[in-house]
Amino acid sequence: MAKAKKQLPVILITNDDDITAKGIRSLVEAVQDLGKVVVVAPNTPQSGMGHAITIGSPLRMNKMDIFKDLGVEAWQTSGTPVDCVKLAVDKILHRRPDICLSGINHGANHSINVIYSGTMSAAMEAAIEGIPSIGFSLLDYNYDADFTAAKQIARKMVMEVLAMKNPDKHFLLNVNIPALPPEKIKGIKICKQAYAKYDEDFDERLDPHGKKYYWLTGEFKNFDKARDTDVWALQHNYVSAVPVQFDLTHYTLKKKFEKNKLFQ
Amino acid sequence: MAKAKKQLPVILITNDDDITAKGIRSLVEAVQDLGKVVVVAPNTPQSGMGHAITIGSPLRMNKMDIFKDLGVEAWQTSGTPVDCVKLAVDKILHRRPDICLSGINHGANHSINVIYSGTMSAAMEAAIEGIPSIGFSLLDYNYDADFTAAKQIARKMVMEVLAMKNPDKHFLLNVNIPALPPEKIKGIKICKQAYAKYDEDFDERLDPHGKKYYWLTGEFKNFDKARDTDVWALQHNYVSAVPVQFDLTHYTLKKKFEKNKLFQ
Repeated sequence: MAKAKKQLPVILITNDDDITAKGIRSLVEAVQDLGKVVVVAPNTPQSGMGHAITIGSPLRMNKMDIFKDLGVEAWQTSGTPVDCVKLAVDKILHRRPDICLSGINHGANHSINVIYSGTMSAAMEAAIEGIPSIGFSLLDYNYDADFTAAKQIARKMVMEVLAMKNPDKHFLLNVNIPALPPEKIKGIKICKQAYAKYDEDFDERLDPHGKKYYWLTGEFKNFDKARDTDVWALQHNYVSAVPVQFDLTHYTLKKKFEKNKLFQ
Repeated sequence: MAKAKKQLPVILITNDDDITAKGIRSLVEAVQDLGKVVVVAPNTPQSGMGHAITIGSPLRMNKMDIFKDLGVEAWQTSGTPVDCVKLAVDKILHRRPDICLSGINHGANHSINVIYSGTMSAAMEAAIEGIPSIGFSLLDYNYDADFTAAKQIARKMVMEVLAMKNPDKHFLLNVNIPALPPEKIKGIKICKQAYAKYDEDFDERLDPHGKKYYWLTGEFKNFDKARDTDVWALQHNYVSAVPVQFDLTHYTLKKKFEKNKLFQ
């Protein structure tokens, strides 16, 4: 007897580097045969957009044939990565996808970068909606970075998550991949977010009219000596996978402030 | 004998509604005699900007006399709320302020709004730098909202935090104030972030050239029945104060995934 035809999972893919980036094409190539892939991504680079949404202006959205060679439907929008997820669910898919993938980002999103990252904010937006979600980032900012290892890792992880019977309700992972050939990568480590931050600086310049302007620059500093952080894992040639939550309550301080009757 | 002259605390104030908003003026008025107040705020509305930073373009910054009547130094920048905090610390104050205040926002930033909010992201940026920080929001979106109660609450809380001998290293509060006259407010409650979200919708329209565009809209839904949430407190006429953290690691899932040997 013929088996009941199993419906293909719907895989939503977005990013923050824009729909033409090599990273998003690499992600599409890595998973395109695992389900019905739909791409909804920004039409301009949105790095560092964090969890921005577009409130003060309307959004545009256009179908594109950029992934036609892979048989994949694609839409570009004028919005942020978070807008893309909202538009995809409400106006394109008209349902929740079975998984949402964001990236593969050109550049690291480990440690504190999770809060600045458009890649991770898109994934978080999906997780808030109850869609299992993964943000992928490669530790290489180059336009033409080598995504060979990242594609293998992404494919393996997506297959495992799609095979889960009951993924956690707000399943969300921040995955960072070292810029190494596949054989140099030691494996995937479940990690916590390292306490690290940027020592910011601004490069002050004069425009042709003699007026000052500033470029944000900065040096990354890791203050976390623990061996279960994403920064540690990446330094030791592992892929880091941090489970991420969107309840930002600091419960330890909550208890302390209640006990101390702060503001009473 | 004369007492040693105590140095005034430096109070950095920013917001996301822009430097001309009634909310930021109200906040300056509420605390201007408690220290040396310096305002660094965006020159355009930045609501919903989340933790966005400006990477792809340079920033502008200009001194303004908008708070001259209050004897307060003010700078407007072309950046996001997070950029404003970075610029303030690095290019204006050349030191960490003793406290950073953000707001008073025109509109709620309780529950899930904390991750979309430019107001809270500015406060979080300061907290990452080790600056005790509070974001204030009034549950009234009106341009000309009544900030009477909000000013009293902000003043009381800032005085209490400035009086702390050793505030926690990353002290960060998300404070929401009901739109009520002072005598109707029952007090300040330490809360957790409610699990609530928006049921998004997009208002689809045609431009004069016959092309589609979309406005983001949506209905707020609270799924959290607990009585210690910010949404509960606000519904019961309390001010909500949620201690906020920027370590987004989901430790429960981390343990579970390690135990299950996920991705091994």
